[in-house]
Amino acid sequence: MKTNNFYYLDKFMAMDSEYDLADIVVYGVGFDGTTSNRPGTRFASSAMRGEFYGLETYSPILKLDLEDYKICDLGDLELSIGNTERVLDEIYQGTKQIVQDNKFPMMIGGEHLVTLPAFKAVYEKYKDIYVLHFDAHTDLREEYNNNKNSHATVIKRIWDILGDDKIFQFGIRSGTKEEFDFALNKNHTYMEVGGITTFEEILDKLNNKNVYLTIDLDILDPSIFPGTGTPEPGGITYKELEKVFSIIKKSSINLVGCDIVELSPDYDNTNVSTITACKILRELSLVIGDNLENRK
Amino acid sequence: MKTNNFYYLDKFMAMDSEYDLADIVVYGVGFDGTTSNRPGTRFASSAMRGEFYGLETYSPILKLDLEDYKICDLGDLELSIGNTERVLDEIYQGTKQIVQDNKFPMMIGGEHLVTLPAFKAVYEKYKDIYVLHFDAHTDLREEYNNNKNSHATVIKRIWDILGDDKIFQFGIRSGTKEEFDFALNKNHTYMEVGGITTFEEILDKLNNKNVYLTIDLDILDPSIFPGTGTPEPGGITYKELEKVFSIIKKSSINLVGCDIVELSPDYDNTNVSTITACKILRELSLVIGDNLENRK
Amino acid sequence: MKTNNFYYLDKFMAMDSEYDLADIVVYGVGFDGTTSNRPGTRFASSAMRGEFYGLETYSPILKLDLEDYKICDLGDLELSIGNTERVLDEIYQGTKQIVQDNKFPMMIGGEHLVTLPAFKAVYEKYKDIYVLHFDAHTDLREEYNNNKNSHATVIKRIWDILGDDKIFQFGIRSGTKEEFDFALNKNHTYMEVGGITTFEEILDKLNNKNVYLTIDLDILDPSIFPGTGTPEPGGITYKELEKVFSIIKKSSINLVGCDIVELSPDYDNTNVSTITACKILRELSLVIGDNLENRK
Amino acid sequence: MKTNNFYYLDKFMAMDSEYDLADIVVYGVGFDGTTSNRPGTRFASSAMRGEFYGLETYSPILKLDLEDYKICDLGDLELSIGNTERVLDEIYQGTKQIVQDNKFPMMIGGEHLVTLPAFKAVYEKYKDIYVLHFDAHTDLREEYNNNKNSHATVIKRIWDILGDDKIFQFGIRSGTKEEFDFALNKNHTYMEVGGITTFEEILDKLNNKNVYLTIDLDILDPSIFPGTGTPEPGGITYKELEKVFSIIKKSSINLVGCDIVELSPDYDNTNVSTITACKILRELSLVIGDNLENRK
Amino acid sequence: MKTNNFYYLDKFMAMDSEYDLADIVVYGVGFDGTTSNRPGTRFASSAMRGEFYGLETYSPILKLDLEDYKICDLGDLELSIGNTERVLDEIYQGTKQIVQDNKFPMMIGGEHLVTLPAFKAVYEKYKDIYVLHFDAHTDLREEYNNNKNSHATVIKRIWDILGDDKIFQFGIRSGTKEEFDFALNKNHTYMEVGGITTFEEILDKLNNKNVYLTIDLDILDPSIFPGTGTPEPGGITYKELEKVFSIIKKSSINLVGCDIVELSPDYDNTNVSTITACKILRELSLVIGDNLENRK
Amino acid sequence: MKTNNFYYLDKFMAMDSEYDLADIVVYGVGFDGTTSNRPGTRFASSAMRGEFYGLETYSPILKLDLEDYKICDLGDLELSIGNTERVLDEIYQGTKQIVQDNKFPMMIGGEHLVTLPAFKAVYEKYKDIYVLHFDAHTDLREEYNNNKNSHATVIKRIWDILGDDKIFQFGIRSGTKEEFDFALNKNHTYMEVGGITTFEEILDKLNNKNVYLTIDLDILDPSIFPGTGTPEPGGITYKELEKVFSIIKKSSINLVGCDIVELSPDYDNTNVSTITACKILRELSLVIGDNLENRK
Repeated sequence: MKTNNFYYLDKFMAMDSEYDLADIVVYGVGFDGTTSNRPGTRFASSAMRGEFYGLETYSPILKLDLEDYKICDLGDLELSIGNTERVLDEIYQGTKQIVQDNKFPMMIGGEHLVTLPAFKAVYEKYKDIYVLHFDAHTDLREEYNNNKNSHATVIKRIWDILGDDKIFQFGIRSGTKEEFDFALNKNHTYMEVGGITTFEEILDKLNNKNVYLTIDLDILDPSIFPGTGTPEPGGITYKELEKVFSIIKKSSINLVGCDIVELSPDYDNTNVSTITACKILRELSLVIGDNLENRK
Repeated sequence: MKTNNFYYLDKFMAMDSEYDLADIVVYGVGFDGTTSNRPGTRFASSAMRGEFYGLETYSPILKLDLEDYKICDLGDLELSIGNTERVLDEIYQGTKQIVQDNKFPMMIGGEHLVTLPAFKAVYEKYKDIYVLHFDAHTDLREEYNNNKNSHATVIKRIWDILGDDKIFQFGIRSGTKEEFDFALNKNHTYMEVGGITTFEEILDKLNNKNVYLTIDLDILDPSIFPGTGTPEPGGITYKELEKVFSIIKKSSINLVGCDIVELSPDYDNTNVSTITACKILRELSLVIGDNLENRK
Repeated sequence: MKTNNFYYLDKFMAMDSEYDLADIVVYGVGFDGTTSNRPGTRFASSAMRGEFYGLETYSPILKLDLEDYKICDLGDLELSIGNTERVLDEIYQGTKQIVQDNKFPMMIGGEHLVTLPAFKAVYEKYKDIYVLHFDAHTDLREEYNNNKNSHATVIKRIWDILGDDKIFQFGIRSGTKEEFDFALNKNHTYMEVGGITTFEEILDKLNNKNVYLTIDLDILDPSIFPGTGTPEPGGITYKELEKVFSIIKKSSINLVGCDIVELSPDYDNTNVSTITACKILRELSLVIGDNLENRK
Repeated sequence: MKTNNFYYLDKFMAMDSEYDLADIVVYGVGFDGTTSNRPGTRFASSAMRGEFYGLETYSPILKLDLEDYKICDLGDLELSIGNTERVLDEIYQGTKQIVQDNKFPMMIGGEHLVTLPAFKAVYEKYKDIYVLHFDAHTDLREEYNNNKNSHATVIKRIWDILGDDKIFQFGIRSGTKEEFDFALNKNHTYMEVGGITTFEEILDKLNNKNVYLTIDLDILDPSIFPGTGTPEPGGITYKELEKVFSIIKKSSINLVGCDIVELSPDYDNTNVSTITACKILRELSLVIGDNLENRK
Repeated sequence: MKTNNFYYLDKFMAMDSEYDLADIVVYGVGFDGTTSNRPGTRFASSAMRGEFYGLETYSPILKLDLEDYKICDLGDLELSIGNTERVLDEIYQGTKQIVQDNKFPMMIGGEHLVTLPAFKAVYEKYKDIYVLHFDAHTDLREEYNNNKNSHATVIKRIWDILGDDKIFQFGIRSGTKEEFDFALNKNHTYMEVGGITTFEEILDKLNNKNVYLTIDLDILDPSIFPGTGTPEPGGITYKELEKVFSIIKKSSINLVGCDIVELSPDYDNTNVSTITACKILRELSLVIGDNLENRK
Repeated sequence: MKTNNFYYLDKFMAMDSEYDLADIVVYGVGFDGTTSNRPGTRFASSAMRGEFYGLETYSPILKLDLEDYKICDLGDLELSIGNTERVLDEIYQGTKQIVQDNKFPMMIGGEHLVTLPAFKAVYEKYKDIYVLHFDAHTDLREEYNNNKNSHATVIKRIWDILGDDKIFQFGIRSGTKEEFDFALNKNHTYMEVGGITTFEEILDKLNNKNVYLTIDLDILDPSIFPGTGTPEPGGITYKELEKVFSIIKKSSINLVGCDIVELSPDYDNTNVSTITACKILRELSLVIGDNLENRK
């Protein structure tokens, strides 16, 4: 029966590969249970699906096109909202499945704590792994609101797993004195305060290394990205982040996992924050697709 | 391969029947090309799909449940935005297909002009047909902005087809002196100014008659429904509209087509307009499902 | 030179009579200098001019049409914003000029204090005058923020001029214990708490009396009118206010001056508050036009 | 040192009694961890403190004044956001302390789950207790999102404690078929669908009984209260809720605890939802103060 | 009769020259009928008239003052909204009239398609003409939504008229692979991706050439200009655009026509987008006025 | 009685020193009575107190922590809103008291006119004083809206007191031709148009001089700071302003008074403007604390 002049906007445009055939799997994780300031990142992936259609599939900066890659938008993960530990396990299991199927997991948060279980699932496969962390905030607290697992402790928890010399932090411009001391004076992580000027240099050292990439979108200046839980003035511009993608494209690192977190769409009625997150998703998907092609 | 803990919000919740099996077909028509005031009804169906999940499938007023009916959300119709005549034909063809397949067409606009081609497709099958028109505005102009086909002329165009004694208008509270004269003094249509108090009485006279129902959501007071092109103070409350549904449920009319138009979601940042449109869609779908059952 | 396919939206639609020929003069007074809560009523008249075009000139409730009356929109009054006393004098002078030219002054505020100088100018001509006051707030304080002249004292200042038995207050639902005592127990004014049910009865007693009408739009419930300085839940609906206009139309009072105050348009992004104020302006202009006709 | 021409807006206006001297203790509980739809009720109490100053201390409907009662605004409770069970215990402990000090606990949520621990603390003191529940939603699920403790299960959990004939639900207009069956057919709770018309009658039966009052603000129609997690069209008006307060005032029940929940202030940029919640807090505090006086 | 202490905000401030005396004619064209994403550019000119008064008439960057030029704000063009072809002809006729009267046409859109008929009217007089195109999008499609005339095809349609080597595109950062290929590889237009760094150089080559300037405001980064149909992150800053004006001022090109398009004011509740469009209108009017003076 | 698990957000976080012990006193002055464009700066200090808790006390740029300084948030000053002259005196008296108590006054406006009385109080103690003025607007008019004292004349009034060579203006990009002539050609003030590039150089010349610092937040570009009365495109970025703070920190000037003015929080629903103002307050407080320490 012919009904083909009707259409749905059910998936990210041009991310409609069958799961079995896909190289990259995009999935939403709408958890914001430990968020201490403005909540709402739970709505990020659905808001992004609605705006993604305003973009083109082609990137004139990267000179790559989404149509040329096999990407599957798997939808959103069912979560036991209200029980943090159970939710973390659900994210872990969901990501593990993708990793075990030899697909690249590209997670859309949610708050930053969702990175912890996703990273763990990737880490189990790629033990020798480095983390590139883009953020306004250190996320290096030992505890927050009496919880060890929190959006404010997530990188510390990853450091518990990886130890020194594995985590590279960029754009950081907020935290306690202790957190900056941990990174800058005790050198437990590499941290560049406020900027991304050393990024290319760092990437040169990670040739052929496995890399997990986590992007807290509040690394962007609130002028372009007000739709987030804790906007922090003094961030980087979109053009600077675009340069990050170009540098990754030229590099020889092995990307093995990735997430984009902390879009809280309802705090920006212009939708520009959501549109910006969408463009970042597109550019990043292209860079990952290209990275995977080059390693085949 | 097990990926079943992931899900999409791609269709109206509980409207996921296969097209072939469905009794009712819901489809979006995102056209607002003749809108003279605030545009944006093009986004109505997609905004509604995002909010529908906040509702339950059960209506405690109607005591009916969506799970008990076979409804297919067919998605949105592809339209040649920019060319009004071609768009009207596309809506006509899309609706005709549904009607010919012996399914009930339930269209979500768009501006009110979309009713014209949908009605025509229904009319071709059910020549002896009555129109129930809920609206704040008469829509009885002969011409608007130099166009015969316009959101402000749509009921006049239907009258061109049906003639006198076939169109019943409720809630009307805005129009030119000429339009009110046409309806109230010349009796070309039945019109109740501002209210719906005679609705039950009218319905009694339409026993076993074929009825097309068109609901311009601006019949509601702007206090509950600001998200529309031309809000008109002095409208009915949601509870009054709910009574309309109960009256239809008890009646013996034969519903043969229906539309809900003029939600412009971006003009209401609280999303209450969209949520209200969703609840109306649920109640109406239940009433239609029940009406079809009773006629089987 | 023909440039007549261009147009401006510079005046309230259909209020374009020459000043010399006009019976009713509409003018804006954008003062909000004593506002203690949310400011912004300064923008009321310009916001209303922009939205008025969404209305029709015909009122199906009143069965009157703006086209049939001679109304001049004179624009906005120039004010020495920052100096309350000078502004009050400017309003007084501006209104006096209109009154002296034997035209009906219809002022759009601004905060409620603007009523004081406008009323004074009208009072100088019509000494035997009654005031109908629609509002959520008593406005009967003796002093506010150390000022005798304030939006919270304006009706008390008018009482200073008129004394007992001249002021009728409707819809009032907020004030200090002392203010309610002043009105309800000491009977210095007639006050109906929260409602307008006695309005028709009161009007019957004012046959052939000169009446000044002041409408603080926050008499409306904040569900339909959030765009005001101090929204007060529990107000009347638009339909109830519409009844007020119908009652005035049927009455035999002599309207001699009028104002509509306290729209703060930027607090309602849906623009419904502004649209509602526009419809009230239309209905009121029609009622005044009709009232003037009947007295000719 | 004289600095008394400076002031803070740190507490609810006129709720500045010393804790030791207070009869009523108001406190905020900013938890929204199990919220399934729009979050943000965490900000309710702080948003309300900012808007409360726009009100008067006197209620012309109740003819009572806040100045006449000893009310202590204790601030907000510190919570281990992210760990639901720990948060519930913190609310329980905080409320218990107030109850044990023989003060009336008046809690401002947060989501509706916060009622459970507060109720428990009150129940431990007043075993023979009845619950008056105002809400749009049944909240009678056995489990939600895999959790027994949830905003959608809270009344079921209270029923687990109290059993039949103790819970009275008003205004309910959304839930699953099973939930309505539980209340309406199996009579486990008394439930009035959509309205509050039987409230006076019910209250007559609770003479001298201990009563806990829980108000989910979404009982109000979204036209006046859009700022909530799950707006549900068809609710009661503010005036109807005001009548509830007058009925309680006239009754002989023994109020022993109370909460107001589910204001999510950031979803209503007009602030009318927050203002409405403030007015309800004022009226309720007055009714409680009066109720306590009468029992002294 | 003296009414000169009243004023209207009916025209762009300081653009009140008589049409017959004016050198520059500003006019609004509120058409957005082929807009595929967010509509609303129809409101651009009226929104701008309301905000223009917040600016000064003097530009400290350009050191020029609006008071020194003869500019006529002619108002908005009447359009047969709903019929694209008729609207295009109405714009053509309106512009032609201005051009024939030897005045400089400065059009405010509206969507970008309005440039086509305006350009045609200018082209008929100045056959040897170059186009400077500032935009985020290529607008070089052959067809869009089944229409040859669309906001997405407008530059292609102009290329149909002018052919190669006449169109210079700046700031472009979105389009299909085919569109970039058309410009960058096949050299049908000159295109600078994302920037305006070569602008001065290009202008040097256009000495004494006739130039039509079309500015799609989405060339600006969405951080400063969210109020547009399709915001595209990575745009230029306002300061960069200001440099464009300074470069034009110093150049020896012959400006013969100009437009500013794609402000959709309702998508930016802060009004910053509208204010920015106003400042661009001021700077551009000054540059044009200066350019015309220098050529006298 | 233990109630210490409750807390208030009543003061700026970490600004809770006793007044007697404090070195720096922060106070709010909610006056916007001469504002000619968008009002609302009256709400700045209370909005900022609500958002300040989203920040950390530590600045990684300045490497200073609020916990290390004695700062007292004294609350807001009571003002006779509606009477400009009386308000100015109240601000003068309030500031004088702080200055006389040998504390550093750090005022949060309000509109820019509030600087005049605060400056006067400081000037009386420190006659040999320089003013650093950050702003988009010259504020050098002789009169505005018929008033000598206005937000648009405030720097001219200070110049009346100080004369030439004492006032340094940065970031200025709007004003009349006369104002720029006053500063740039007649050298009555030092003015840098649009930028802050000479700031370090200027500061070198003010070694050991008394300096009053006034920051009109609209110096920032509206992309990051839309929440102000008169947004002016082309401003500096937050990072550039951050550099100003670092330069002051390194300098040897004697800071003796400071204010931050013109945040109008309700015009930015994302709250980014308020958050940015908070971060500026933090950085400035740290710089001042450090400056005072160094001079001890």
